[in-house]
This record gives sequence, structure tokens and C-alpha cells, in this order.
Amino acid sequence: MKPPLVTFVSDFGRDDWFVGVVHGVILEACPEARIVDLTHHIPPGGVERAAFVVEVATPDFAAGTVHLVVVDPGVRTGRRALAGRARDQIFVGPDNGVLEWALAAPGAEVRELTDVKLFRQPVSRTFHGRDVFAPVAARLACGLKFESVGPVAKDPLRLPVPTPQLVNGELRGRIMFVDRFGNLLTNLTERLLAERFPDVAPERLEVEAAGCVIRGLARAYADAPVGSMVAILDSSGRLEIAQVRGDASQRLGLSVRDDVRVRVRR
Amino acid sequence: MKPPLVTFVSDFGRDDWFVGVVHGVILEACPEARIVDLTHHIPPGGVERAAFVVEVATPDFAAGTVHLVVVDPGVRTGRRALAGRARDQIFVGPDNGVLEWALAAPGAEVRELTDVKLFRQPVSRTFHGRDVFAPVAARLACGLKFESVGPVAKDPLRLPVPTPQLVNGELRGRIMFVDRFGNLLTNLTERLLAERFPDVAPERLEVEAAGCVIRGLARAYADAPVGSMVAILDSSGRLEIAQVRGDASQRLGLSVRDDVRVRVRR
Amino acid sequence: MKPPLVTFVSDFGRDDWFVGVVHGVILEACPEARIVDLTHHIPPGGVERAAFVVEVATPDFAAGTVHLVVVDPGVRTGRRALAGRARDQIFVGPDNGVLEWALAAPGAEVRELTDVKLFRQPVSRTFHGRDVFAPVAARLACGLKFESVGPVAKDPLRLPVPTPQLVNGELRGRIMFVDRFGNLLTNLTERLLAERFPDVAPERLEVEAAGCVIRGLARAYADAPVGSMVAILDSSGRLEIAQVRGDASQRLGLSVRDDVRVRVRR
Repeated sequence: MKPPLVTFVSDFGRDDWFVGVVHGVILEACPEARIVDLTHHIPPGGVERAAFVVEVATPDFAAGTVHLVVVDPGVRTGRRALAGRARDQIFVGPDNGVLEWALAAPGAEVRELTDVKLFRQPVSRTFHGRDVFAPVAARLACGLKFESVGPVAKDPLRLPVPTPQLVNGELRGRIMFVDRFGNLLTNLTERLLAERFPDVAPERLEVEAAGCVIRGLARAYADAPVGSMVAILDSSGRLEIAQVRGDASQRLGLSVRDDVRVRVRR
Repeated sequence: MKPPLVTFVSDFGRDDWFVGVVHGVILEACPEARIVDLTHHIPPGGVERAAFVVEVATPDFAAGTVHLVVVDPGVRTGRRALAGRARDQIFVGPDNGVLEWALAAPGAEVRELTDVKLFRQPVSRTFHGRDVFAPVAARLACGLKFESVGPVAKDPLRLPVPTPQLVNGELRGRIMFVDRFGNLLTNLTERLLAERFPDVAPERLEVEAAGCVIRGLARAYADAPVGSMVAILDSSGRLEIAQVRGDASQRLGLSVRDDVRVRVRR
Repeated sequence: MKPPLVTFVSDFGRDDWFVGVVHGVILEACPEARIVDLTHHIPPGGVERAAFVVEVATPDFAAGTVHLVVVDPGVRTGRRALAGRARDQIFVGPDNGVLEWALAAPGAEVRELTDVKLFRQPVSRTFHGRDVFAPVAARLACGLKFESVGPVAKDPLRLPVPTPQLVNGELRGRIMFVDRFGNLLTNLTERLLAERFPDVAPERLEVEAAGCVIRGLARAYADAPVGSMVAILDSSGRLEIAQVRGDASQRLGLSVRDDVRVRVRR
């Protein structure tokens, strides 16, 4: 039988001991769990970035995976602690938008963590990652029934998610994430492009960002000469702008929230 | 049955392969061990910082946990290799102060690692983390009797630990650690405050650091408006100075060793 | 029985989710595998540095270990995906030189990963670490026969490895790696020194780099006063130049590719 899997995203960094302590709490409550660190380098309080990482990374995990998301600048302010069940997976985190990916799913169920017997005691003032979220995530991974964590949570906080717009036949989206390699990940998905530009071959599209126009979608980073810019459908099914063996973000001076447009070439 | 747990602190960073190799050695000697990395970003040779991380993080782990602490600037200089048993846990590391938390415990036992049969052979000149500390820690995690590692070690090196002073009714401590969020962790514990200021409600205390006076102890970071300074008892039971959704260290220009004072408000 | 071990080197960094997703894929295909991260901080596309890490770290792992090496700037350019069997271990990565350590071994076998049934489907354009290399590495760790991954790969790409030269009785090598502590690791191995300078006591050798002459090989970093330069045979059996409790790289202004010379003292 496969051991239960818990992924973990936070803004804790790795210079301190917070991540390690959370691992310890998870293993105490669910010794057979395997823990996968997605990233702990979300900037402090970076709720939107954490939500994006959850959206883009969790579909790669098997059904039944529990995702622990602790970016919690409002710890102990009355913000609720939540667990969501969606897309055959479970998501645990504060009610501040980090669980947007779960909440946005059709049929998502959301419950408030209220059963203090599931928490680590005493619950501290400042570290609910250790005392509330981790022990509940671990117990869910080890088989605790989702319904046991607490009552249904009404009106969880939703993130304002930017929706791509079709204007004058041009699809306008924006950059959601700049990765380690300087690649620019957008909110324009393969499915959206297929819907908006049906029957248009990828090489007939053009992508514009920061005045740079890229003709056609590439099949690989290296379809074009070193140093040139390419638009490509990436490993999460999103339109990505990249520089071949370079850093597109630096080259174009673009970052999160900047505009990207796609249209049919004339 | 719970798998044995080994935590690991070092100054190895993660750019090189040292941490990974130590994991390999632990799993070779104790395949069922679960390894939890506390941090590997102790600055090179930062014995005091490592000792503080051990003090603040290890109480969150279960009895029986083995803590491997490799900050070892004096490798192969004749400094002894030690194992300590204290607080129902085991601590393994060099005799340079990193194990202060274990040594300071009532009833602590300390032994010198002298049984070369427990080491990885040949023992290198420069990497006792791999060759001495990790294999012994792993074997202890897998059930090796503590007494088997070697003879009792007399007079292990102790760190000069700063003791808070009560002067004119004012408790004077200092900053021990600045965490990822810029929060200032002090050596003033909840217990010490209760001893020194019995029957004083938390809201009647005031905390002074760098000329900034904070009135009362907060129950949460977010008790006060964004940007304001709060004093709070943190997740390890210490007085901490924080800026609500900000960086107290930057705001106050304070860092490790700086003074903090607590007194009753007039 | 020991669980299968998979090590993992990449240039993914830890700010994004790529490393975590690869862990998830490995655990999906081989749930009992233990994964050891060597480093993910290879600079983007740093094939030579990754190859060196593999060379220096993998000999510390047990026979049967599977090493996953994903530094893959040429993803989907037609470069082959390879698995190598050498030194009783298995190495998986792109055909761009990262597997040089395996390829250079006597009796090394190299195969091309061609069996798409072993891959994660669909194979993306940009993330073969997740879709090709990780699932094959995991299956090999879980017992897949090496021969099953695909046909023998002819003429895999080899790295130009700098060979130390003996000139006028002087052995000339170069710096291969600067570690976290600023220590300079060279391509001059203990065995090579023994071959070139048979019957010469270590204290009769002298090492020169950047005009700095170091007399004799030290037995420990701390053989010499704090701040002085030492030459020492390190934990991987290589000649290393270090500053006692300091940073040799900074002190000497030396880095990768710079020259190092060893000769008998006059």
C-alpha cells in the first residue's frame, strides 16, 4: 500500500527551524506519511504566490494527497483555519486565499478546523502551522474522515483571480509567476487558447509582451536560436514566454502582473 | 511502531552535496530512520546560533528523537566528538558548545565517541559529519545503547549563556535570534517573566528595545494595527518583539546581542 | 530489507515547485523509495558543476543507489535521455555530459531511454525531469531491469575533463569547485599524488596557487594558525586548498578553472 503523501508550502524559508518542526509534528501524528516540500521560499505573507504554486503543482500529485499550505500573516486574528476537499485531494491552510485552487473547483467542500482535540496543545499565539494546520493535515493523511475536522465553512475568502479578456480578437492575459530560469508563466492556458482560437495552428498565433512580438508557439525551448524569445505551452499547460538559454524576465523587464497578449498573425 | 527520527542541523548550506551525503550515511546505517532537516544555513562555524536552534526546536520533538548537530570548525583538532542524553532525547555533535542545550539539562549524561567501529571508515581529515557523527547518530536512532558510544566525557565545553538580570525592578535580557520574518527572539521566557513579575497582568508590563517602548504583551501579532510594534510570547515560550506584518529587526535596527528590558508600567 | 535509494541533483533551485513535483513522481512510481537531495542549486544549465557534484558525492552512496541528475538546458532538442550503469550504481540524466562520472568508468553501460511506456504521459515540452527522467529513475530503483529502459546508446556526449599534467617535475592541476566554506577543491587526487611523487612524505610537498606557496600537506584544517593557508587531502580524496577558519577562495581570489601546482620542496 502506498504511504500517505503530504505536500508542504510555506513562507518559512529554510534559515530557521520552522519547516523542520512542522515535519516533526506531521511524523508524530502520522508516522508513515511521506512529506514533500514544494517550496518554503514564498515571500513572507505572499498569499497570491502561494496560491499559484498550489494551483500549478498540486495537479501533478496523486488522488488522496494532502496539501499543507502555511502562509499565514493573520495568525490568531480570528481568521479561520480551513480544510478543503476538491479534485480528489485535500488542502489545509488559513482562510486567506491560499486555498483558492481548491475553492474554485466544482463541488469543492470546505470545512473549518474547530475540533481542538485534533490540535497540538497548547496552541501557541504565533505558530498555527505547527499547532493547528500540521496536526490536522497529518491526521487527514492518516485516514481521519474529512467531515471530522469541523463544520462546513461558509463564504471562505476568495482571491481576486485575474480573468483573461478577449478584446478586438486579441486575448489579453497577464504574467502570474517568474520561475527560477526567468521564464514568464501566464494565466493563458492551452484550453483557453484552443477555445478562443479554434482551428488556428500554433504557428499562426503571435504573442506580444513588453513590445516584443513572438511569432508562433514553439514546440521546445530550443526550437529557436540561443538568445531568441519563444512562446511555448509549458509543463502545466500554460503559455510561457522564455528566452532560449536565457532569462526572459530580465531581457524583457517583465514580472508578475504585467500584460501578455495573443492574437492571430495577419 | 514509529520509525526512528533523526533531526539534522549544520552549517553546510545546500549549494554543495554535504547534507545529501550525510543523509545517505544515516540511511545506510539505519534504513528505517526518518530524517528531518532543521536548518543547514547556520553561518560557517556559527556555534552559538546552532546551539540556539537546538534549544528552541528540539523540545517540539518526541522523546527518543536523535538530534545531529554538525557545526564543526575545529574538525580533527583534537576536539572531542560527543553524544549527550538529556530531556529524553539524544544529541550528537562536536565538543564546542553546540550541544549546550543538552549539557545544561539536569541529569544530562555526556559520552565521548571513541568506538571507531561505529565510524565510517576511513575517517577523513575534514568531514566528521559524514564519518563520525552521522553513523553514530544513525546507530543510536536504530537502537544502539547510549553507553556503547564511549566513556563518560568529563568537562565538556560549555557556552557562556547570557543570563537575564533583574536591575532596579527591571528585567534585562537580550536578543538571541532574528527569524525569517524579522521577529526578535529574546532570552526572556514566559516562566522567567512569571517568576519576576508575579501577579502582574501581561497588559501591565512594558518592553523597551532600542528606545522603543511597547505597552503590554499582545495575544497575537495582529492585536495591534499593521506597522505597529508588539511584544508577544511566541511559540517557544519566549518574549518576542515583532512588527505587525513588518520586520522588527529592520525597523528597530536591532540584532542578536542587543538589549531588551521589561518592567511594570507606571 | 533496505528501501531503494534515489539521489537527486538539479538546477531547479528551491523557490519554485519543480523539485517537489519530481519527488511526487518518484514516490508515485516507487512508493518505498527514499529520496536524498544532493543539491538543487546548480546554476541554470551548469552541466560541468553538476557532473562534478555527481563525481564527488556518489561514491559515498551504497551499491544499487540510483542517481537522478537533471540539468537539462537542451530539453526536447533531440538530445537523448540516458541511463548509465557503472560503479555498481545507476545514473539517469540527459545526454549532455552530466553523467560523465558514470561514462568514464571502466565497463560502464549506457542505454537510451526510449520506452515511452515508462514515461509520465503526456510528456511535456519543457519538463523532462518530471516526465522522463524521474519515472525511469524511480522504476529502476524499484527493480526495473536496466536493460528494459531502451537500447544501448552509442557515443554519449563526453565532457572535456581537464587532465593534470606533469611538467618539469611539477604536477599542474586546476580548481574544480569552491565549496560553501570557500575551500578550493582540485582535480589532484590522493592517488595521483602518490603515483607522481612516490616515496615523498606529505610534508615535503609544496602547493602553489595564485602565487601563494603552501608548505606540506596538513593533516587537519586546524594544524596551522587561524587565518593561514593549508593544503589538505579532503573527504573525497582530493587535494584541497583551505584557509584555517577562513575563506580561501576570497583570500586568494581564486575560483573554478584556476591553476594549482604541486612539487617537491627544495
